[in-house]
Amino acid sequence: MYKEEFMRKAIRLSIDNAKKGGGPFGAVIVKGGKIISAGVNKVTVKNDPTAHAEMEAIRNASKKLKRFSLKGCELYTSCEPCPMCLSAVYWSNIDRIYFGNTKKDAAKIGFRDDFIYHELSRPILKRKLRITQQLRDEALTAFEVWDLLDNKTEY
Amino acid sequence: MYKEEFMRKAIRLSIDNAKKGGGPFGAVIVKGGKIISAGVNKVTVKNDPTAHAEMEAIRNASKKLKRFSLKGCELYTSCEPCPMCLSAVYWSNIDRIYFGNTKKDAAKIGFRDDFIYHELSRPILKRKLRITQQLRDEALTAFEVWDLLDNKTEY
Repeated sequence: MYKEEFMRKAIRLSIDNAKKGGGPFGAVIVKGGKIISAGVNKVTVKNDPTAHAEMEAIRNASKKLKRFSLKGCELYTSCEPCPMCLSAVYWSNIDRIYFGNTKKDAAKIGFRDDFIYHELSRPILKRKLRITQQLRDEALTAFEVWDLLDNKTEY
Repeated sequence: MYKEEFMRKAIRLSIDNAKKGGGPFGAVIVKGGKIISAGVNKVTVKNDPTAHAEMEAIRNASKKLKRFSLKGCELYTSCEPCPMCLSAVYWSNIDRIYFGNTKKDAAKIGFRDDFIYHELSRPILKRKLRITQQLRDEALTAFEVWDLLDNKTEY
């Protein structure tokens, strides 16, 4: 259930991080009415292009709960998640997202979220990034091995 | 420039990881004709829903090069990247992707890549995941702070 204090916490993190010269993004993950993890954008300070606020919060929450599924958790983020972070939310089974700024707001200050959403929605051959398929027959072996495993952990 | 040995390396990693019960995915990043990093799917072994093969390879490459931009690098991956990983490729400025299996192949053995692509292509209100905007006016403050910074590191 939405609580304004959690949204304000995510926003507070985003403002504080921007003031320090980090990306202007913050996020918290809530479970059972309590914040269990937080994250701010650390792309430039950690030299990690994947270190968005939501990714950091998701990784921190998984570490804390010692499980890869965050079912039962909610994400509060200062900005609409980019497609990387939104996909991570799906992979982590988070129940719900609350966000402040939109991807259009982010585009206005120079972030590529909106562009990447657009690229992902296009067929492979129409994207600006060159993507080519190779050796599918050989690659399928890994899927066959996986498919036949008896005691695998699915996700 | 595409080299089959790099594709075979990514595939080898995916098969070896599957045999150990990890997700059947592997990836390498190549720069100047040499592999500079590798990754396999570690979602279940690290309890990290973001630890896909490509994400691991990207993080490892950034760590090695000590920069968040992987311009000049190419990604070889045993399977078409999921939208999380594909977005990370855009954020990291990787030049090009070569992949083996498709997202449809991945769907056939139970992975949700294709479903997540579909969800991302839909407007917020049409997605299965509930996503709600809150407090945009307050959230915009972080963007205003960022916009006015003189010496910020953009990406």
